[in-house]
Amino acid sequence: MNQGTIKRSTLDDALRAVASGGYESIGLWREPVQEVGLAESARRLSASGLRFSTLCRAGFFTMEEGPARRAAIDDNRRAIEETATLAAAGADGSAAVLVLVAGAIPDGSRDVIGARERVADALAELAPEAAASGVTLAIEPLHPMFASDRCVVTTLKQALDLAEPFDPAVVGVTVDTFHIWWDPEVLPQIARAGASGRIATYQVCDWKTPLPANVLNSRHYPGDGVIDFATLTRAVEATGYAGDVEVELFNDDIWAAPFDEVVARTAASFGEAVAPHLAPVDSAAAVPAPATAV
Amino acid sequence: MNQGTIKRSTLDDALRAVASGGYESIGLWREPVQEVGLAESARRLSASGLRFSTLCRAGFFTMEEGPARRAAIDDNRRAIEETATLAAAGADGSAAVLVLVAGAIPDGSRDVIGARERVADALAELAPEAAASGVTLAIEPLHPMFASDRCVVTTLKQALDLAEPFDPAVVGVTVDTFHIWWDPEVLPQIARAGASGRIATYQVCDWKTPLPANVLNSRHYPGDGVIDFATLTRAVEATGYAGDVEVELFNDDIWAAPFDEVVARTAASFGEAVAPHLAPVDSAAAVPAPATAV
Repeated sequence: MNQGTIKRSTLDDALRAVASGGYESIGLWREPVQEVGLAESARRLSASGLRFSTLCRAGFFTMEEGPARRAAIDDNRRAIEETATLAAAGADGSAAVLVLVAGAIPDGSRDVIGARERVADALAELAPEAAASGVTLAIEPLHPMFASDRCVVTTLKQALDLAEPFDPAVVGVTVDTFHIWWDPEVLPQIARAGASGRIATYQVCDWKTPLPANVLNSRHYPGDGVIDFATLTRAVEATGYAGDVEVELFNDDIWAAPFDEVVARTAASFGEAVAPHLAPVDSAAAVPAPATAV
Repeated sequence: MNQGTIKRSTLDDALRAVASGGYESIGLWREPVQEVGLAESARRLSASGLRFSTLCRAGFFTMEEGPARRAAIDDNRRAIEETATLAAAGADGSAAVLVLVAGAIPDGSRDVIGARERVADALAELAPEAAASGVTLAIEPLHPMFASDRCVVTTLKQALDLAEPFDPAVVGVTVDTFHIWWDPEVLPQIARAGASGRIATYQVCDWKTPLPANVLNSRHYPGDGVIDFATLTRAVEATGYAGDVEVELFNDDIWAAPFDEVVARTAASFGEAVAPHLAPVDSAAAVPAPATAV
């Protein structure tokens, strides 16, 4: 479970709901962690018995050199430290994965190509620090409808091209069905990501139209939309991916529902739409089960 | 000028506003043509002195074999005939180009790959008829936010792959900035499209966020958004593209404005954001000028 699905939860809300919902692992968001403080968050995560799967999120480093860029890079350094600390505190099998969203075309600019070059520059600056902390930076391509105002990285191929110069243990990619399902190249690029050991996290979430007025919150429970989870999940599994599978849903209705209800419905939809397509060895790890089973 | 920019116009409204606005050419929509009848539309187009640049649109042939698919194929046959007739009626230099929008993932299906195969099948069925009529089918990749409910063809590369088996005079592509600007592969794919002689039409239209509630109508005058028309237009021109450049804007506010005002503003925005980047030989043809100058 990714905490973004229960967006309004505090860290304690999230750990309680997810552990008592029978999940084994959790992906956390930075704001609720920072609210409690990093050391205390690590203690509470450890006490929950949950594995830690990802920290969401850092990135947003498309701006030109200057104070704003320095502040963004510093913030990414803090996120790397947070990721390492939380991964060490999670149950065995926790992953030190930090999800990166590249950021927008800067205000007043039309230079999407330049913005992408500055993403590459930021990765080069941050990779040594991630390596030193044992953290994997997971570049997330976002759906092209966010290309101007949120993420200039729009395809899995592009994310892999950006990751290519670096050690796969240090720079990988986020494979999120919602963002890449439409891509005619998605299957060969998933295979490429797997072959190069760069699938840092696999996230599932469905696409349905009409889109709501705020397209950011247009994500649906797996099975409620048009995404072919069988094909995509088998493609990921065929690469030998053995990490956790996260469900991350931005949706106003889901955010307004009680946490326990959302946690239960997420497990049910995952069990129906995604779990049947997991490779046997991974099913045991990924299908929700009592947290104490870890 | 593409009639879609003055969506609520009749054929007569459109021909009058566009000719009196100083344009040389017009792209027409099928519904207003059918309202008047094909032969009468051809007569009125001819009397306007305008070139004909495209007919919008046919396609929508992603469904499985059956009566609905047969009806769609028949409708495409009629569109081919309409295109040939209108191109023959337009002023010298008219283009017999029919824009094709592939269509949605069929209701109840999650098989986007199968839907794409049926697009290829439809092209194979229609290409001989287009060839016999001297019509170019222009496959239009739409922005991936329309991939499920409108067009399973989402990238210029995919459109070119679909076109590849056919004579470039018979199956080409629509290059519309709004739909493809976000694509990291857009420049090499424009070059590929040009090198293979498959740019059947070049359309300009800007992208701006936040998107409106109806994302279909989220298009803006060139220059009002983030698209780099200099880079994209020069890339198209560098291939030797010598056809008309259309402005096609779906936007509720623009559709609610008086036709003459929209026509004037379109010419002004085109003159400022696009025309400076046209190659010299094409500028003469594409910059709005008195219709009588043809």
